[in-house]
Amino acid sequence: MTRVHVIGTGLLGTSLGLALRRVGEDVTLEDISPTHAALARDLGAGRLAEGPVEDDAGIDPDLVVVATPPDVTAAVVAGALTRWPTAFVTDLASVKGAVVNGLRDVGTDLTRYCGSHPMAGRERSGAVSGRHDLFDGRAWVLTPTEETDPAAIALVTAVARSVGAAVSTLAPERHDAAVAAVSHVPQLAASLVAARLEPLDDAAVALAGQGLRDVTRIAASDPGLWTQILAGNAPAVRDVLTALVADLERVVDALDDLSESTDAPGARGALAHAIAAGNAGHARIPGKHGAAPTTYTTVRVLIPDEPGQLGRLFAHIGEIGANVEEFHLDHGLGQAFGVAEIDVVPGAAAGLAEGLTERGWHLHG
Amino acid sequence: MTRVHVIGTGLLGTSLGLALRRVGEDVTLEDISPTHAALARDLGAGRLAEGPVEDDAGIDPDLVVVATPPDVTAAVVAGALTRWPTAFVTDLASVKGAVVNGLRDVGTDLTRYCGSHPMAGRERSGAVSGRHDLFDGRAWVLTPTEETDPAAIALVTAVARSVGAAVSTLAPERHDAAVAAVSHVPQLAASLVAARLEPLDDAAVALAGQGLRDVTRIAASDPGLWTQILAGNAPAVRDVLTALVADLERVVDALDDLSESTDAPGARGALAHAIAAGNAGHARIPGKHGAAPTTYTTVRVLIPDEPGQLGRLFAHIGEIGANVEEFHLDHGLGQAFGVAEIDVVPGAAAGLAEGLTERGWHLHG
Repeated sequence: MTRVHVIGTGLLGTSLGLALRRVGEDVTLEDISPTHAALARDLGAGRLAEGPVEDDAGIDPDLVVVATPPDVTAAVVAGALTRWPTAFVTDLASVKGAVVNGLRDVGTDLTRYCGSHPMAGRERSGAVSGRHDLFDGRAWVLTPTEETDPAAIALVTAVARSVGAAVSTLAPERHDAAVAAVSHVPQLAASLVAARLEPLDDAAVALAGQGLRDVTRIAASDPGLWTQILAGNAPAVRDVLTALVADLERVVDALDDLSESTDAPGARGALAHAIAAGNAGHARIPGKHGAAPTTYTTVRVLIPDEPGQLGRLFAHIGEIGANVEEFHLDHGLGQAFGVAEIDVVPGAAAGLAEGLTERGWHLHG
Repeated sequence: MTRVHVIGTGLLGTSLGLALRRVGEDVTLEDISPTHAALARDLGAGRLAEGPVEDDAGIDPDLVVVATPPDVTAAVVAGALTRWPTAFVTDLASVKGAVVNGLRDVGTDLTRYCGSHPMAGRERSGAVSGRHDLFDGRAWVLTPTEETDPAAIALVTAVARSVGAAVSTLAPERHDAAVAAVSHVPQLAASLVAARLEPLDDAAVALAGQGLRDVTRIAASDPGLWTQILAGNAPAVRDVLTALVADLERVVDALDDLSESTDAPGARGALAHAIAAGNAGHARIPGKHGAAPTTYTTVRVLIPDEPGQLGRLFAHIGEIGANVEEFHLDHGLGQAFGVAEIDVVPGAAAGLAEGLTERGWHLHG
């Protein structure tokens, strides 16, 4: 049995406690708000540490997990390393370089510290939103420094795997550059593309198709949360965003040239290059389950917009035995039906199309 | 019976012929390639105009539809207005201002011309990809000028509706500004966000989540096609993209300030403003069927990754009677299952969650 002490009983801390309790670990809980800690306990996330928080709180954990807001994470990690002189310590903050820098700034020995970042759960917050399955099937990135004891890495790995997460390892600065490119800059791009709809009138916005809906889906995200995330990773996000702006400016230049003369030399090449570079980047995104990228074949089906029609469709897909990789609904404007786009591996497309046609579905070109 | 003459028997022209033949209209076909025209005829899109194409081809159409590549559309429209002095003429090009300007440049009387843009079918090309249902439930925008005869607008409207499209009207320059913001700039943003993944190694790209997948889905689009589209709408795309770049530069400035000092005055406000502006723009995107925007409630369900599981899920959703508005699969990394996100109207969420739990599904926080 591993003894895990969780500091900070918000969504992540409470969820981790719930998950660890289910696999039989001994979990103690602590929060700057005693009410929050008691709530997490009542939800089943663990027991309260009974001693005063100024010292070791009367416990002797193997691992301390710091699940506080990012702006106090470094200070709480430093405190934990002092309070429990033999325990390993990790934290769950979504930006890692700032924590390491904060620890180095106060001269902390980083041997027993291994930072980490579970890619899980951000839509809601608080202990009441905690779920024992929050980490199921999610990536959990470990970000050890050169000083980190291999035993610390092994323990955090074991704990993350015990709650169902898929563990990988990146140096802190590489982690921050990665999430800047795969998460933080895409968020900003989605938000600002959506913001450009503001000057349009309703008839213009009504031309929106599935492409715009996909690009801007995450533009509905919470400004307060994202301000913290972006500010915490400012240098890495700035670097990726600066490169993106330079790429966009090359396209603006090409469009400027084409606005002057439709024969502008090199302008079409610049546009084609931008789209082709996007093809190459898109092809690098892994398929599901961390597998190599796969190009799927899309089968399109007309579906009536009434309760149960999607159920019929999926029941038939189940009968046919096809495994759906991606699924999108494309809704027509002013019409009482939509188009379902079903992505399957290329070898399965013909059988799916034939089986659906046999069952009376109308395929869409 | 309306007599419709289609010039250009690619995907759109052939699909329109197929659709109009099904509702009993008299369709004649013409293409600069006699082979392509004969293929469209053999597919059932209409009969060939028999006379020489230099004059009226021995026919007397009510409406001529120009479905040629965009770079020759204006010249072919001008020719059609001359060849059939009493017919109305429309075209299907995805950018409208350039066609009108091309016609004005050669002094064309625009009375009998009403441009249009069906928002349909772009993944494949050629007559063989033609579908009679290509326009079903799609928006079809009419772009008349001030000179356009109301009878021309009425005829194009009737033809578009007869093939199942939802008709709306915008002035050509407003159409081009709208598609720049809702389609062309989102494409460029998606492509260049995806292109920024190029410098990352595999471990970093492996952190990609559903947000990145959504933002970059259309980055897989064809560079040749998009170069034509963007070049054809260069001034309008340039204007929207310039505004987007300015917005991004304000964010870069804020991130620069925060990289210098985490207390930089105003920097967090600039970040929050960018995300909040995205919220406001996102909220303007209409729901399906051209209805007012709706915020849906998401029910998340853990699904095993095996054939038939999605079928079971949707069959159960059908039993429960919930109407699915949007559906996303979020795949875990390195794990044999995923999370289905089911968006329903807020009033239906509790019943759906309860019904799924009763049927043994595991909800995900």
